Amino acid sequence: MPCFLILRLPLFLVFGGQLYSPEIEKLLKQKKVKIGSRVRITKGRGSYGGILMPQTDLGNPNSIVLKLDNGYNIGVAYDKKLKLRKLKGGKKVRFRPSRLTIRPDPTKPMVSMLGCGGTIASRIEYTTGAVFPVFSPNDLLLSFPQLKDIANLRGHKLFDLLSEDITLEHWQVIANETAKAIDKGADGVVLMHGTDTMHYTAAALSFMLQGLPVPVVLVGSQRSSDRGSSDNAMNLTCAVTAAAKADIAQVMVCMHASINDDYCHLHAGTKVRKMHTSRRDAFKSVNVLPYAKVSYIEKPGSIEYLREDFNRRNGGRLVVDDKINSNVALVYTHPNIKPEFIDSLRAYDGVVIAGTGLGHMPTNPSSDNLAKSILPSLKSLIAIGIPVVIAPQTIFGRLNMNVYTTGRMLNEIGVIGNGCDWTPETALVKLMWVLGHTKEPNRVRDMMLKNYVGEISERTDTR
Amino acid sequence: MPCFLILRLPLFLVFGGQLYSPEIEKLLKQKKVKIGSRVRITKGRGSYGGILMPQTDLGNPNSIVLKLDNGYNIGVAYDKKLKLRKLKGGKKVRFRPSRLTIRPDPTKPMVSMLGCGGTIASRIEYTTGAVFPVFSPNDLLLSFPQLKDIANLRGHKLFDLLSEDITLEHWQVIANETAKAIDKGADGVVLMHGTDTMHYTAAALSFMLQGLPVPVVLVGSQRSSDRGSSDNAMNLTCAVTAAAKADIAQVMVCMHASINDDYCHLHAGTKVRKMHTSRRDAFKSVNVLPYAKVSYIEKPGSIEYLREDFNRRNGGRLVVDDKINSNVALVYTHPNIKPEFIDSLRAYDGVVIAGTGLGHMPTNPSSDNLAKSILPSLKSLIAIGIPVVIAPQTIFGRLNMNVYTTGRMLNEIGVIGNGCDWTPETALVKLMWVLGHTKEPNRVRDMMLKNYVGEISERTDTR
Repeated sequence: MPCFLILRLPLFLVFGGQLYSPEIEKLLKQKKVKIGSRVRITKGRGSYGGILMPQTDLGNPNSIVLKLDNGYNIGVAYDKKLKLRKLKGGKKVRFRPSRLTIRPDPTKPMVSMLGCGGTIASRIEYTTGAVFPVFSPNDLLLSFPQLKDIANLRGHKLFDLLSEDITLEHWQVIANETAKAIDKGADGVVLMHGTDTMHYTAAALSFMLQGLPVPVVLVGSQRSSDRGSSDNAMNLTCAVTAAAKADIAQVMVCMHASINDDYCHLHAGTKVRKMHTSRRDAFKSVNVLPYAKVSYIEKPGSIEYLREDFNRRNGGRLVVDDKINSNVALVYTHPNIKPEFIDSLRAYDGVVIAGTGLGHMPTNPSSDNLAKSILPSLKSLIAIGIPVVIAPQTIFGRLNMNVYTTGRMLNEIGVIGNGCDWTPETALVKLMWVLGHTKEPNRVRDMMLKNYVGEISERTDTR
Repeated sequence: MPCFLILRLPLFLVFGGQLYSPEIEKLLKQKKVKIGSRVRITKGRGSYGGILMPQTDLGNPNSIVLKLDNGYNIGVAYDKKLKLRKLKGGKKVRFRPSRLTIRPDPTKPMVSMLGCGGTIASRIEYTTGAVFPVFSPNDLLLSFPQLKDIANLRGHKLFDLLSEDITLEHWQVIANETAKAIDKGADGVVLMHGTDTMHYTAAALSFMLQGLPVPVVLVGSQRSSDRGSSDNAMNLTCAVTAAAKADIAQVMVCMHASINDDYCHLHAGTKVRKMHTSRRDAFKSVNVLPYAKVSYIEKPGSIEYLREDFNRRNGGRLVVDDKINSNVALVYTHPNIKPEFIDSLRAYDGVVIAGTGLGHMPTNPSSDNLAKSILPSLKSLIAIGIPVVIAPQTIFGRLNMNVYTTGRMLNEIGVIGNGCDWTPETALVKLMWVLGHTKEPNRVRDMMLKNYVGEISERTDTR
């Protein structure tokens, strides 16, 4: 097992200055205001009082960051009409990088931690113009000392983004950095990621990382660390456990499994979806069981496998296949959806339609129907070589386009997806990935219907 | 309690003829083929053998209906190249209207049954060019004799559509026919409806039927009546029970509650969603409990209330407010969604965006982000007076756009929905209904944020 001196890793984001724009720096100087001063900013109808915070290297340098008395940070965009007044009071704001000295334990696995954003690894709420979005293994150990009992940690921050702003290019960066970490001997990789689009990223990595020899575990936090109910400690502990010990060489999402702080689920990267805006157990496996449970309370660190159909750790060679095409649209059908809406998609290289029920959309075979069919528009798209893929807007369940006329009609015109049980999100990501490899319609169809990484489950329990 | 002689109600769809187009009639005559003959149809690469069925008054008269040997019906569109050959064999196909004589029981409530489509009330699978899509209370009682112990039934068929083909105009017809039935003394109304878009219709009726004095219950069936596992008998029995006896004067969906045939749930019309392509318990209440359980096995016909926040039966006056605007788009955001996609929505009167997490979309506040923000496009839509409403693509949970920068930015530009917990479908239907009343942006906002019929729940259990 490889062993690295953690302290030799660089701190990737040592806070070096205020990082404000020259205009703001000038204003601050003029008003004799320093980081930590209490100030009031008035702009238009808004007025905000709080402590002046440093801007970060990722924040907008033309925006002034205040910590309000309620503890939230806000950023106020600078303009010439903005008024800033120094108030009495204030406090010392200083960044203290971790000076912890931890000797790696050669008997423990090495887990590589890569930061993509999300509150999970932040010592301070990062999204509102974050004050110290610092990430290093040592900083992590400062907040979560229990991790050193599980594995030796190394890693760095790739970027620090709200996950709704993660793009296909970020997926490629994550895939390649993950491969690098594995190449350097990591026994598992943990990716800290915002939760909003974590399931999109997990699906993308599942297709991009082929022949994975070790676990790749995405983890996030539904509640930020300044809240008592934060799920970051448990999720992170379970994720590091999974990366260090789970005999599952797949891309997974590790998140709270229940409403209690008792265990996490390891979900297959292509079969998981965020199903709640705020609950800690928001992530659910769709149409399959999670790979495993990771215990946090009862038998800390124990892994209970719930399935057998996954790849085990192996000595194989990882291939990164990160070709991807962003020119794909996702459309949900609904009553009175307009054919023009479908017609407007001709500039795309592919279209995913989330249809109703078993795989239906308004096609109106009956002549006295009052709505317009979208069938001719779909036919036209397919005729000019744009693949149209269908997924169920019910989220759960499998498409069966043999049962009803509508499904059979869609099948006949060449809509791809009959028999599949992918979520709309996984279908979208897969079509993006497939179209990164070919635009030839028959090849696209073959690749879409090939089951690469369990994105099409073998059977659905329909009861 | 009003009492009607059921036998005096007309059969609305007595099968009168073949209802084929003159071209097809000519072909059949020429080939000496009659309804019930065994034939083979060859068209292009396809060849189908089966029994010739009559076309229905709702089917496409230019399409030939065959019952295949596997029991499924198919419709083959006529064209001049189609070849039809008479084979040996065949059977007598005759429509036998019900001759049941049932005396209404003056001690029982009167339930009005309106047919909108769906397999639930069909004696034969109706969707593939249905042979006898007959609907009358007597026909229902033939299939489900237990219903007469619950209530006196009357009613008729409004239309017979696959629910994916139901339109806003159908919602209006259903609303007005429901009002008529209540006006004529129904103690409750059951609407038989296909399941694919049943939750859209339920939401629409919830807004359209104001001051409802009695229950209005939508019911469907996930498995057609020719399958042993059909849920039609239980769902219909529970729906008639609810319409006859439940002290809930709301629009509801009555469907299988579990994987067993033991009870149904009565879901609030605005807070329910089809969550599985095929399971019988596909319909789930979102962010609230169902109004009630209707027992089928243990205590047949008993209703257990699970909430108290609904209107009771009352003597009030029902007002049908069916103004609605179909010119509304629904968009799901995802990584790399294009600003051009949002820009293309300028011809709509309103837009619903299903965002990620607590109410986010790619807005990229950070300058080093590689993707394009859709914020300017949304701003432009709002600037030209197009209301933009947000709903959570997680389906479950409540929007909270105060927590993160992205949410606050969307709030600031005027996106409507902060604090709401509607599904994307209910948000879409509500915006359609609101835009039927006004296009004035402030009035649209006020109406959207007003809680008309429980579509915004008072609190969410987020744990």
